[in-house]
Amino acid sequence: MTTPLRLGIAGLGTVGVGVIKIVRQKANLLAQRTGRPVVITAVSARSRDKDRGVSLSDYAWEDDPVALAKRDDVDVFVELMGGHEGPAKDSIEAAIASGKDVVTANKALLAHHGHALATAAEDKDLVIRFEAAVAGGIPVIKALTEGLAGNDITRVMGVMNGTCNYILTRMQDAGLPYDEVFAEADALGFLEADPNLDVGGIDAGHKLSLLSSIAFGTEVDFDGVELEGIQRISIEDIEQAEDLGYKIKLLGVAQMTGRGLEQRMSPCLVPADSPLGQLKGGTNMVVIEGDAVEQVVLRGPGAGEGPTASAVMGDVCDIARGLRISTFGVPVGTLTKAKSAQSNSPAPYYLHLTLEDKPGALAKIATVLGENGISIDRMRQTRHSDANAPVLIVTHKTQRAALDAAVDAMNATGVMVNAPVALRIETV
Amino acid sequence: MTTPLRLGIAGLGTVGVGVIKIVRQKANLLAQRTGRPVVITAVSARSRDKDRGVSLSDYAWEDDPVALAKRDDVDVFVELMGGHEGPAKDSIEAAIASGKDVVTANKALLAHHGHALATAAEDKDLVIRFEAAVAGGIPVIKALTEGLAGNDITRVMGVMNGTCNYILTRMQDAGLPYDEVFAEADALGFLEADPNLDVGGIDAGHKLSLLSSIAFGTEVDFDGVELEGIQRISIEDIEQAEDLGYKIKLLGVAQMTGRGLEQRMSPCLVPADSPLGQLKGGTNMVVIEGDAVEQVVLRGPGAGEGPTASAVMGDVCDIARGLRISTFGVPVGTLTKAKSAQSNSPAPYYLHLTLEDKPGALAKIATVLGENGISIDRMRQTRHSDANAPVLIVTHKTQRAALDAAVDAMNATGVMVNAPVALRIETV
Repeated sequence: MTTPLRLGIAGLGTVGVGVIKIVRQKANLLAQRTGRPVVITAVSARSRDKDRGVSLSDYAWEDDPVALAKRDDVDVFVELMGGHEGPAKDSIEAAIASGKDVVTANKALLAHHGHALATAAEDKDLVIRFEAAVAGGIPVIKALTEGLAGNDITRVMGVMNGTCNYILTRMQDAGLPYDEVFAEADALGFLEADPNLDVGGIDAGHKLSLLSSIAFGTEVDFDGVELEGIQRISIEDIEQAEDLGYKIKLLGVAQMTGRGLEQRMSPCLVPADSPLGQLKGGTNMVVIEGDAVEQVVLRGPGAGEGPTASAVMGDVCDIARGLRISTFGVPVGTLTKAKSAQSNSPAPYYLHLTLEDKPGALAKIATVLGENGISIDRMRQTRHSDANAPVLIVTHKTQRAALDAAVDAMNATGVMVNAPVALRIETV
Repeated sequence: MTTPLRLGIAGLGTVGVGVIKIVRQKANLLAQRTGRPVVITAVSARSRDKDRGVSLSDYAWEDDPVALAKRDDVDVFVELMGGHEGPAKDSIEAAIASGKDVVTANKALLAHHGHALATAAEDKDLVIRFEAAVAGGIPVIKALTEGLAGNDITRVMGVMNGTCNYILTRMQDAGLPYDEVFAEADALGFLEADPNLDVGGIDAGHKLSLLSSIAFGTEVDFDGVELEGIQRISIEDIEQAEDLGYKIKLLGVAQMTGRGLEQRMSPCLVPADSPLGQLKGGTNMVVIEGDAVEQVVLRGPGAGEGPTASAVMGDVCDIARGLRISTFGVPVGTLTKAKSAQSNSPAPYYLHLTLEDKPGALAKIATVLGENGISIDRMRQTRHSDANAPVLIVTHKTQRAALDAAVDAMNATGVMVNAPVALRIETV
């Protein structure tokens, strides 16, 4: 089989440029590994003239990615523009309509429209691959879909947003407040155009919803992800957590239970010396648990030109080798509708309360906890420099529902200066 | 495509039984994931009557695995007998000769005969898959061959023998000497029939040689692996290493250099708080470094019924899905002959010397080190209860060749009670 596999690349940011470099520099290696030449025939981006450090002169140019997607000399449409509506969606739809396989790094698009796109692709026996959409360079989708295909997956969890992890570790290492590190991350270009995608946990939630679908054979259900961002995490929380032997991580957990599919993405405390606790900066980690394999842990860079391009090329090479695999691991028609369930597995919680400094305030809080069946493992009042009294509580194991009820009741006591920060403690 | 994929399984130990359980219990799931039923048609093992906890009544029985391999109702020959000669080799050869794909967990066989078998398979457009042969349940071969196909792999390293890691961590945790823990491991059935396969580093070396071939596109070269076992590691070494902030692990490292392919499997000191240092018991870890992806780390169970069967089923599902991939990732004809090179990247070393307790002994050793250009970072004489003086030295970075020369010269001084233990310190 020596027919070349012809790529059309839409989006020439760092990842697109990374893909071009690999295709140019490793032509022989790729041909050896896949059994056929892999070539780029056409590209599209917003600006034709921008200096990207690679020559585009060998490739046809299209201003419109939809036109690129329809070209007869393109076998695989590689979508690296991003965005869950607009050109990315239009061009992928056009690619499928005109019989092209698709490789994309676009988690937002797939989290919102993955099911419809997978259905359209399957109708035409086309594949949509998206290794680069989740956990950067880590071949986690391949591991779940293929390597662990003999397992009933029981749980998937991980740290999947490098920007949040950068902010949290930087706060910790430099002892800087959230706002300052956020501004730093923004200046470094680490944040999405809408920063809430990162710090609000949405980007990581998109990724988790894709992993859930593959892991549990359910339709992607991004709306079913309980989302909580890192915006309210203070340097005090980080320091207190450390003092207790924990780190704070934006952690995603998805598991199928008798009540339905639990999906949550929220800041949690994890043991400081655990693999998750030791994650630094932009590194991602995904933990996969299956009935046969027990537990597999994958760690690697969550973003960046090389790692993301590596993931895109993994998909391209699979297509070149002739691997035809359903978008979410099984035919769309066999995906079940996920019934979304709130997590009710008991866990200890970390509570950071700011109370008005008046007699009886703490007693009211303690009473509320007791009334909701929540017992206190540890409590400390940290300092007392103004009229407010910050109080930190670590509870014994309790269910989320009891905790939520207690938090509501606390907010109604009239002694709270603001809503408490409540973080689950995961003993992974 | 609803033609069933028909497996013939040779070898019904724990792994074979694990595969039978998965095929029986997950028939629907496997059919959904692969697009066709996966069934077992025939089995073979030494004893037909042994109670294995699964019924074999649905399967044809063959006393001879070669006869199983030749059966017309078998599409994939699953070899789970082990051993690098004899029935395993004969039956895989027979399977290939009669047009069957092969899935095997047999690292010893592939390390010795993988090239010949891959050549025979390729001549007939057949595939040989062996995910279960390396690092148990971790889909590491898939990651290397497929997920990271866009990378020039620069280094592969890892802990790949659970028994050695069990012995080393057990010595550490229980403070027990090597001989005692070795006897324990033997009693628990953790050791191969020839224990030297485990503690001599041979089994792990087999695995490393397979990973090297895939990573670097070279013919499997087990003879090129510098092998050193854990037999000489004492509880004192483990305690001293811990005191210095390290753990001792049987670590494999393979990297392509300008001088050739370095492959070594030897006990090393790694930082106690590093992911490798934190590995416990039978858990394996593989670190893959590539020019695009930077570094990916995979961790999971290195052995056991479920994890190994999971890896076998990953291969089976790939074949069911129609993935045809060269045994070592590229066609056999394009594999290059590895030129074996001794590692010469400088590293600090840990030396455990036992000197005769007489004046000038230490001076002679210090002189030898100096003459070989090796400077001492730390030294201590640990205790002194008999006529011998145990001395521990941590050197500054030095090359292996200089260290070997120094060790030879030390042995010639006449003050050494026995050959020194010299362990590389890897700052991974």
